[in-house]
This record gives sequence, structure tokens and C-alpha cells, in this order.
Amino acid sequence: MRGAILYAPGDVRVEERDRPSLVEPTDAILRLSAACVCGSDLWPYRGVETYDGPIPMGHEYVGIVEEIGADVANVKVGDFVVGSFFASDNTCEICRAGYQSSCVHRVLMGSLGSQAEFLRVPLADGTLVATPGMPEPDLIPSLLAASDVLGTGWFGAVAAEAGPGKTVAVVGDGAVGLLAVLAAKQLGAEQIIAMSRHEPRQRLAREFGATDIVTERGDAGVARIKELTGGRGAHSVVEAVGTQESMMQAIRSTRPGGHVGYVGVAHDVQLPGEELFFSHVHLHGGPAPVRQYLPELIDLIWSRTINPGKVFDLELPLEQAADGYKAMDERSAIKVLLRP
Amino acid sequence: MRGAILYAPGDVRVEERDRPSLVEPTDAILRLSAACVCGSDLWPYRGVETYDGPIPMGHEYVGIVEEIGADVANVKVGDFVVGSFFASDNTCEICRAGYQSSCVHRVLMGSLGSQAEFLRVPLADGTLVATPGMPEPDLIPSLLAASDVLGTGWFGAVAAEAGPGKTVAVVGDGAVGLLAVLAAKQLGAEQIIAMSRHEPRQRLAREFGATDIVTERGDAGVARIKELTGGRGAHSVVEAVGTQESMMQAIRSTRPGGHVGYVGVAHDVQLPGEELFFSHVHLHGGPAPVRQYLPELIDLIWSRTINPGKVFDLELPLEQAADGYKAMDERSAIKVLLRP
Repeated sequence: MRGAILYAPGDVRVEERDRPSLVEPTDAILRLSAACVCGSDLWPYRGVETYDGPIPMGHEYVGIVEEIGADVANVKVGDFVVGSFFASDNTCEICRAGYQSSCVHRVLMGSLGSQAEFLRVPLADGTLVATPGMPEPDLIPSLLAASDVLGTGWFGAVAAEAGPGKTVAVVGDGAVGLLAVLAAKQLGAEQIIAMSRHEPRQRLAREFGATDIVTERGDAGVARIKELTGGRGAHSVVEAVGTQESMMQAIRSTRPGGHVGYVGVAHDVQLPGEELFFSHVHLHGGPAPVRQYLPELIDLIWSRTINPGKVFDLELPLEQAADGYKAMDERSAIKVLLRP
Repeated sequence: MRGAILYAPGDVRVEERDRPSLVEPTDAILRLSAACVCGSDLWPYRGVETYDGPIPMGHEYVGIVEEIGADVANVKVGDFVVGSFFASDNTCEICRAGYQSSCVHRVLMGSLGSQAEFLRVPLADGTLVATPGMPEPDLIPSLLAASDVLGTGWFGAVAAEAGPGKTVAVVGDGAVGLLAVLAAKQLGAEQIIAMSRHEPRQRLAREFGATDIVTERGDAGVARIKELTGGRGAHSVVEAVGTQESMMQAIRSTRPGGHVGYVGVAHDVQLPGEELFFSHVHLHGGPAPVRQYLPELIDLIWSRTINPGKVFDLELPLEQAADGYKAMDERSAIKVLLRP
């Protein structure tokens, strides 16, 4: 089968890879309908994260069940399914508490590579959620978004305790940040401030529910958030970047007693303990337990209540994955969908 | 009047100070019944925190209202009152959200110095809570504990979401840590693990409700907590020290999705963003909004449901404040009560 491989920073190639087959009786094999490039794929692509040798890429996926292991009971061959970037048993104590991305048996899907024609999904019963039927083609981008960026933005908004009566600010205008805006809106937030200096992203943020746009960054961005919130700071701030600057911007934009939900994978971030102490904020985040939200998100998409697929502003055949990485890296595309 | 002054690291003297008088119409003057030395007083005493010139010391206090300003309505002359280490209006948006220690008009009581005979309390209506009557003498240590260490341990346990069915671990066996054990017990925790290697403190921890004692620290302490919690870590961990080691011990002892409540004033602490991200913990803490809990804590003390005053294992006349600091510094006393 064809699949994307990262050889070195900036060097993604689509090549022949072995078609995966069942390894464990709890596995399923999917024929992928769509895959995509993630903001977090850019960390190794840019050489910020290191790795050993050529690695398969991709951890977001939707597709049709092609084959199942002997122990798989919750999905069947022919189902259209959505999964997420950690396979999880969905039965352990940590999963039951809603933290499937820290499942005691979790498997990182990125190591299996979903930018490909087929994908092996471990722990299929716990990981995959079937849609109510075969989706209309125009729903596929939204279902694919649920696999990671929507689920991650959703977790960010939940971790920030977005809800009725709340002012929510979102740091980061990538797909995750934009979908955190959508999540905040769905969760009933009163005021939603998107921090973005890019016109097409601002437009999408407004479409997803942003009431205010802040173009300033760093201290100036914090000052602007304070101005918009009676000098107090936002109740809820979603951090969707993962840098020192963005984390501090998020913490400083939050009022005492407020909540920061951080979902940008932290890179070279050190949080100053004393400032954090006196900030009085709640801090929660990490790899989103997308599995927890999949049934609800699929419902919202299936009923056409939300349209998170709008974050895909570039669609390419899998063979052109390299162009997709380049467009994301240069920020000329918000999110790239790949068709195997 | 007599009052304690810190001249330099290790140099506390009790001297003549001006007796405070009303400055604002919202002030009250208290004749202090008892004061004490706080773990956080040791930071400047040890020279870890710096300051300009000789400074008055003390921020915990109970006493009798001696005089009130024209605008004070909630307490009257002759009332026995408890206050906390931040004066707060208790009416602003931040106070109403339960974060009185970040009140927009807050005043740090430490700057006024409660290790003395009299104390001026700003924002008396918002800050002071009167007891139902004149307390029996044996209740005074417990009411004094409510002023800071009990309220702080309580906030730590609340921030860590201690409650029914939860395993709570407490890092730090100072008065705050020990009272976090008491708080966890009152909040209904199922298993309470005190981390302590000092026999008298272990005994008090057990008396306050600890079900397990862990004497190991650092990585070994974390491993022991994991062992006691089926390999997962505690649901709730209270951090009551404020060092890099204790913060990391708290974070690493918490299961994914669990809660760290940190109330040790962070000194030279840097939290590694990536580890925090993948830990999946909730982090919340800061200067405890003791005012929020005072009515409830006074009730529990008045009805003799709890006896937090047991943390005072050394009582000295105010004149011997220097001995009190020394005993706390050397850890020969858990907590020192000073009688003006």
C-alpha cells in the first residue's frame, strides 16, 4: 500500500509500505477514507522533535472496517468508524475516569502511520466508534476532524471549564484553536475571544462563534484580554500552541480562580512556580481523551449541528502529502486533508 | 505596644512599636489574643526571601475588636474575631467567586505585623468573622489555626478535590500538611496518605485521619504512593512545601486525571511543561482564600468537631518570639503559638 514516511526534517515521501495485517485478536484493519496532517506532525517535520530513522506519519483517521480480530465485538466489517490518536481499552480505571489518552494499555497511533491506505488499530473495541451508517461524502471531513483536532479543541474548552456565563479566550488560531472556539460556543460560553492575526482564520473563528478577535500577542495580547473583561481576565482560556510564550499568554489572560485548558503539546516550556502560585488559575490539559467525546461529537456532526470540517482548506491526494506538510508549515493552509 | 521585628536572617526581636490606630473608616483595631509563627515566615527568616530594612512580622491572628471605623457594620467592639492573611472586601467579583486572597482591594496582613499586641485590620467588614461568643480559652489555638494553617490546608484539600471514594496523599508534614490531612478526612476521603519521616508528626497525622504513612521522599516516595494505589497514583495530592522536589513529588504521585492542590509558597520552582502535559493532572493552588472557609471552620471548631489547635506544640510569650522562630526553623516545634 502507499503511505507517508518522514525521512528527515522537511523530507516527507509517499512510498510503498507493507499493508498491515492483524497482530492481536483485539485489532482491526481499516481501509482509510481520509487522513490529514496535524499541527503536531510539524514538530518532527521542523526538526524540533527528533526520531530514529524514517518513520511512518499520521495519527488521524476515518475509514471502513476491512478485517477484525477474533476478540473484536463492538465494530464489524463494513462499519464506518472514527478513532483517535491513542488506542485505548476504554475499560481500565483511567479510561473510566475519562482519560482514555492515558489508558494503561494505550498505543500511540502515530507509530502506526495513518497517512496511508490501510491502518491497523489496536484495541479496536475500546478505540473505534462506528457512525450510524455510511456517511454522506460531505460529512467525512468533519468526522475526520473529530478524530483529533475537534476532540482536542473540545477537551481544551472542557478543561478550561467553558460554559454558560463564561468569557473564553483562545490562544492559537490553528485548527485546534479554531475548533476550541466552536466547542466553547457549543458549551454555551457567553463571550468568545479568538486571538488571531490572520484574516481567513479570523473569519472562520467568527463563523464558529467568536464574538471578539484580538490580534495582539504576548503582553499586549494579555492587556487586550484584560480590557475586554473589565480588567479581570477571562474565566476560561484555551492554550492551543505549546510554546513558552503562548502558555504564559494563556496563564496571564486568566482571572484568579479561572481555568486554563492547554492542549498544545508543550515544547521547551518551563512554568515559573511563583507566578503560577499567585496567578490562582486552574491548569489542566494534556493529550486530549478524544475517545470520551467521540459519541457526542459524531452525533453533533451527523445531525449537522456543527461543521468542524471547515478547517480543511486544502485537499490533496495522499501522493502529494509533501505539499500538504509544506502548506501547513508555511501556514498557507489551516489544515490539509489527504485522500488515499 | 510590643511587636516582633525581623532585622536580618535569623534576627527576630520583640520591641516597642507604635500602637496602630484607625486609618480608613473601613478599618478595625484588634487587641490580639494570640498570634503565631508561620512556615512562610521562615522564608525571610532563612534569608531565602529578601526584604528592605527591619520588617514587622506575623499574619495570623485572633482577638477582640477594640475600635472600629465609621463604615464598619459587620463586627462591633468587644467581638471575638478571626481574620486571615489577606484583608479582602468580600464583595468584588473575584471575592464572590471564592478567591478572596486575590481580592481586587486585598491588603497583605503580613505588612502590618500580627506578632504584636494590637493589629489594624483593613476592610474589616469583608475580612473579619466573629465567633458566636467569647471562646473558651482551649478553643483559641484552634481558632488561630483557622486564620491560616487550617484554612490553607483546607484549600489544598479542596483544590486537590479530596472527597468520598478518593485516595489523598499529602506532601509536607508541617502544620499545613497535617491540617490538609484533617481537611481530607472532613471532606470524606477514603484513604489518606501522609508523607512524613518525623514520628511526632506521623502521630498527629494519624490522629487527624491519615490511614497510611510514607516515609520515603522524591522518586522513592512516588514509587511508594504508586504501590499503595494499585500502580495508578493518588486521585488527589496536596503539596504543602513549595520546593521543586516537593512539587515534582506531588505531580508524579497523582494519577492521570487526578488533582494536585498546591499551597506551599513556590520558591525557585520551574515546572517542566512537557512532563506536566503528559501527566494529565489538574493543578490548582496559590494563597488560600481562607476567608471563604472561615464561617464553616469556626462552626466545626465551636462544635468541637475538629481540633486543629493540636498543631501548636510550643507556646511562648510574645517576648520570646525569637525562640519560637528558632524552634520552627530547627523543626523541633511543628507550630509555635505566641501570647501577647
